[in-house]
Amino acid sequence: MKPVWIKHAAQLATIRGENAPRKRQDMSELGIIEDGSVWMEDGVIKAVGQTEELEQIFGARSKEAEVVDATGRLVTPGLVDPHTHVVFGGSREREFEMRLEGATYMDIMNAGGGIHATTRMTREATEDELVEQASRRLDSFLTHGVTTVEGKSGYGLDLVTELKQLRAMKRLNELHPVDLVPTFMAAHAVPQEYKGNEGEYIDSIINDMLPAVAEEKLAVFNDVFCEVGVFTPEQSERILEAGKRHGFIPKIHADEIESYGGAELAAKVGAISAEHLLKASTEGIQKMAEAGVIACLLPATALFLREEAAKGRQMVDEGVAVAISTDCNPGSSPTTSMPLVMNLACISMRLTPAEALVAATMNAACAIRMEDRVGSLDVGKQGDVVLWNVANYQELQYLFGVNHVGQVWKKGKRVVG
Amino acid sequence: MKPVWIKHAAQLATIRGENAPRKRQDMSELGIIEDGSVWMEDGVIKAVGQTEELEQIFGARSKEAEVVDATGRLVTPGLVDPHTHVVFGGSREREFEMRLEGATYMDIMNAGGGIHATTRMTREATEDELVEQASRRLDSFLTHGVTTVEGKSGYGLDLVTELKQLRAMKRLNELHPVDLVPTFMAAHAVPQEYKGNEGEYIDSIINDMLPAVAEEKLAVFNDVFCEVGVFTPEQSERILEAGKRHGFIPKIHADEIESYGGAELAAKVGAISAEHLLKASTEGIQKMAEAGVIACLLPATALFLREEAAKGRQMVDEGVAVAISTDCNPGSSPTTSMPLVMNLACISMRLTPAEALVAATMNAACAIRMEDRVGSLDVGKQGDVVLWNVANYQELQYLFGVNHVGQVWKKGKRVVG
Repeated sequence: MKPVWIKHAAQLATIRGENAPRKRQDMSELGIIEDGSVWMEDGVIKAVGQTEELEQIFGARSKEAEVVDATGRLVTPGLVDPHTHVVFGGSREREFEMRLEGATYMDIMNAGGGIHATTRMTREATEDELVEQASRRLDSFLTHGVTTVEGKSGYGLDLVTELKQLRAMKRLNELHPVDLVPTFMAAHAVPQEYKGNEGEYIDSIINDMLPAVAEEKLAVFNDVFCEVGVFTPEQSERILEAGKRHGFIPKIHADEIESYGGAELAAKVGAISAEHLLKASTEGIQKMAEAGVIACLLPATALFLREEAAKGRQMVDEGVAVAISTDCNPGSSPTTSMPLVMNLACISMRLTPAEALVAATMNAACAIRMEDRVGSLDVGKQGDVVLWNVANYQELQYLFGVNHVGQVWKKGKRVVG
Repeated sequence: MKPVWIKHAAQLATIRGENAPRKRQDMSELGIIEDGSVWMEDGVIKAVGQTEELEQIFGARSKEAEVVDATGRLVTPGLVDPHTHVVFGGSREREFEMRLEGATYMDIMNAGGGIHATTRMTREATEDELVEQASRRLDSFLTHGVTTVEGKSGYGLDLVTELKQLRAMKRLNELHPVDLVPTFMAAHAVPQEYKGNEGEYIDSIINDMLPAVAEEKLAVFNDVFCEVGVFTPEQSERILEAGKRHGFIPKIHADEIESYGGAELAAKVGAISAEHLLKASTEGIQKMAEAGVIACLLPATALFLREEAAKGRQMVDEGVAVAISTDCNPGSSPTTSMPLVMNLACISMRLTPAEALVAATMNAACAIRMEDRVGSLDVGKQGDVVLWNVANYQELQYLFGVNHVGQVWKKGKRVVG
């Protein structure tokens, strides 16, 4: 594989510095180099600096490299999506249409729709089918500049299918250029066959599923949907604590629909991140700040559900490290566009253009423990780089709704453009 | 130029029927042909039907054609954007950032921002510069499947610059594949030099500008920003009636910020369309329905300004023909993505996926009097066609925030993909 030399970037936004979640003013630190240059070789970043500097080191070797002229354009690290449900069976566009044609929630349930439809289709799908369908979604992520993606199980809701989803992710991580980081989330819903026996389902998660997933080393994180009518804070805590005993790092879907103490619980159990947080209390936000829990905010989901977005501006101001994500899933956010999510972070949550970029790179990487390998343009990190067809990072957010990706490199290899 | 034969489309959404604004149930009529096929030659559509049918007519000539296999995918007419301000000078991404960093409206005005900044930069730009900048925006429209665009003057606010903007449009229409339909809109704002003397500015529009624009045949439509603090309904009526005497068809920016009788005025003056309409009264909507005024709705602008979108669902139900548009402009909607606008028409305005597609094709074409040439796949119309990387028209709206364009043909020539 040839070395890659991207040179003369109008702005090279390195996001350099400590590999740690950025808070407050640090979320505005893009480490911009004008007339910037990056040299990638053997899959990793070997040098970052002004073009003039790299010219002195590598100028003699330019003939052996793939040289990319980024004049007038922005270069950033590959984006990181820290919260998706990218592996699932089937599609639900017809349900979307029915809803817009006036069907009620019950009409859709009676027509076999909703999350249970996805559970059914995921159970019916073979592992190969899940791999094939998710692979196309990961292709779309790549074309949107996303080089690292977290993925959750949770459409199986039984041991066999949860393992199938996680094994599909393991294969995808090997087959597909995108790094896919797996999260176990059987506690995504109570399956229909356990209605009224939630306790039994929780026992089965703790006694059967967690050990099996640990045994096969199929996940890094353990996530729970803590919400009125799904899992209570007490049940969520039990599941997350059980996961910790197997070495799984806790994540928590918190305060999405109602204020339910989810942010507080995230702080209490030492979750690496809390997700959604549309209805998080001010006290919960402060506790997250104190405990160092990353807020993973999903403004595309809020848009799709016509909800007020999470209080991103307040969270940044309170000292919470904010990350952002597509939440890619068939029910509440069927999108793969992190560029749109960055735009919405500005438009709907009042993050600045710089904060939105940090939320989609370094902070997102920290939310899935990938910060040592991705999330910034630093020597030794993976050669995950995006060249954007805009002049500066402000335009990236301002010219909204457009995928400005020009070219993408993953581990030093061009995969888009 | 080779003929083009697109065949085996999973869904060929022809939008066939009368070339007239679609209302109510007719907005759901997509005229879908499964295993659909279209033959284009000499820039126009020569045949539309099932692949089998076209095989019989053109099978023998397939070797001379560009044959496109659309298996599993959706094909539609080229999209039409009936409301943009695509020709302007300068860029305002820094202002967007300032606002998110906490700057007030006055801070921005004091820093030389706002609409008057664009007026200044448009006055300073040469005609060549305007052509060059707008040409890149039209490229972006094309990559989003938009083959026909309306464009307004209104950043000149003086005779010389308004003519410069319109002449730039005339040249763009000749140079660029996209059809650009021009609207005169000196009544977009009162220029700073006329503050307190609005009447004089209106006189200058009526006595100096309208005759000059008519003389050079530089516009088809005449548009006014009827809004509290801009032009009153009485002033707007005067300007639109004066335009009619020169043969310009009225359009009107109505009820965007406050309910101001704009929808009612559109009906009264016989406007072809009324724009924005976020605060249109129910009575105004009914009058538009009776008078056959097309509602041109701009949900991306509402998103960018964090406003509640226009009542698209109500308007369709009341019998108004609804069109949708990007409103592409540097202040309130710096986007070129009609696919996102269609998604937002569903998400924010509760149009169905079918209605959103009709609003972006036939009804948009009718709003700019282009329905005899574009807006549907009918024999004799221009060969303006989009092949989408989705399986059906529902997915086009459901998998939101993503530009699903695969290939685009303009007047029978492939211009994208």
